[in-house]
Amino acid sequence: MQRYKLTIEYDGAPFCGWQSQPNEQAVQDALSRAILSFCGESPAIFAAGRTDKGVHARGQIAHIDLEQVRPAFKVRDGLNFHLRPDPISILSVEEVDDTFHARFSATGRSYLYQIVSRPAPLALDGARHWWVKKDLDIDAMNMTAQSLLGHHDFTTFRSVQCQSPSPMKTLDVLTVWQEGAVVYVRAEARSFLHNQVRSLVGALKVVGQGRWDHKDVVASLQACDRAACPPVAPAHGLFLMRVDY
Amino acid sequence: MQRYKLTIEYDGAPFCGWQSQPNEQAVQDALSRAILSFCGESPAIFAAGRTDKGVHARGQIAHIDLEQVRPAFKVRDGLNFHLRPDPISILSVEEVDDTFHARFSATGRSYLYQIVSRPAPLALDGARHWWVKKDLDIDAMNMTAQSLLGHHDFTTFRSVQCQSPSPMKTLDVLTVWQEGAVVYVRAEARSFLHNQVRSLVGALKVVGQGRWDHKDVVASLQACDRAACPPVAPAHGLFLMRVDY
Repeated sequence: MQRYKLTIEYDGAPFCGWQSQPNEQAVQDALSRAILSFCGESPAIFAAGRTDKGVHARGQIAHIDLEQVRPAFKVRDGLNFHLRPDPISILSVEEVDDTFHARFSATGRSYLYQIVSRPAPLALDGARHWWVKKDLDIDAMNMTAQSLLGHHDFTTFRSVQCQSPSPMKTLDVLTVWQEGAVVYVRAEARSFLHNQVRSLVGALKVVGQGRWDHKDVVASLQACDRAACPPVAPAHGLFLMRVDY
Repeated sequence: MQRYKLTIEYDGAPFCGWQSQPNEQAVQDALSRAILSFCGESPAIFAAGRTDKGVHARGQIAHIDLEQVRPAFKVRDGLNFHLRPDPISILSVEEVDDTFHARFSATGRSYLYQIVSRPAPLALDGARHWWVKKDLDIDAMNMTAQSLLGHHDFTTFRSVQCQSPSPMKTLDVLTVWQEGAVVYVRAEARSFLHNQVRSLVGALKVVGQGRWDHKDVVASLQACDRAACPPVAPAHGLFLMRVDY
């Protein structure tokens, strides 16, 4: 028996999210099929972050235990062969000991949200960026973002379907910056609530448009009321970038 | 009558290239239909670069003459409305005088080629990058690139279908650099031969793999023989970025 840590990239578009759902195609299902085809085993798969429908990953982490021991690079190449043509790629595989747990050992998750702010539609980047027609005030967005850092009740910024026992989370990083026409929002925390990053980005976007100011966002946080959250940013601009251990 | 300069972005994947072909769908055809729907006119469309099948653009330039004069931003928004759902976007429209010609006034064209060099397949970026499994020697590629600069007979690096009367071209910039796993090749010249950029990238790739060295590339240039060109890089990694006037 050997435990393997998998670093995984995927295009969220064709999937119902990381986690299996009745009558839907999840990233986990495709990976599970590939493992079975590769080595005939059906291990449980544990992931660091259960990304939502349509959310992408450049650095999702999962672990599996396999009865038959193989070199890590052979597991990587074998799984990638059997994952075709699904848009899921095993970037790397590492042998880890039994104390490693992809979800419970994680000490931080880093997400990136991508927006393009310009008048013209996106012919090339529409599948990976949220198109916002009007110019955004990046300084206002970033300044507001800083007031959301720290330990708060994030009820306003979590889905009503969120299964976390507590709405209390500590937000470590929320940074907004621009490169050319692309606006990036980076969010880092030990863990996030369901829809939290997309809810925060939705709030920052209305600040960028000048429809809300800094005080409106603070008031909506303090309201601890999901109804106080502006429209949530769409899934296709969000990437799980990295998990720290 | 007013002449308009259009800056155009498109995803090359669904098109046979910029230029109309019998029984195929060209970028030019889609634009022509959108102009007709927008204003009822069917002007000739002149473009700076006739990009090949599958090649993308972030800054293609074209010009058209319209009988009815409208503000430039209305032309942009109207064309974008009628271009839907084709992956073509008019980034900007400018009123220019009759001496401006998108093709003949151009003094420089800038292309960017994108490669990802890593063992794992591309789940997210496969439509816009050439996947090369093995590590590339970027320094060797860039050093070799410098020896291709200047005025040369580029017969080796042009398609046998190229219609240019002369194989002589002056290559001003050919730079290779890496950001993370992405390798970029930038090529700039007053104008290029058919397939020239993709042929040059194909040659630099075999240098990066260590299968050719600097001298092999110089010898292939000097051979002035298409058969001396390594396999041409695929179209989907290439972008027409900018045209200078």
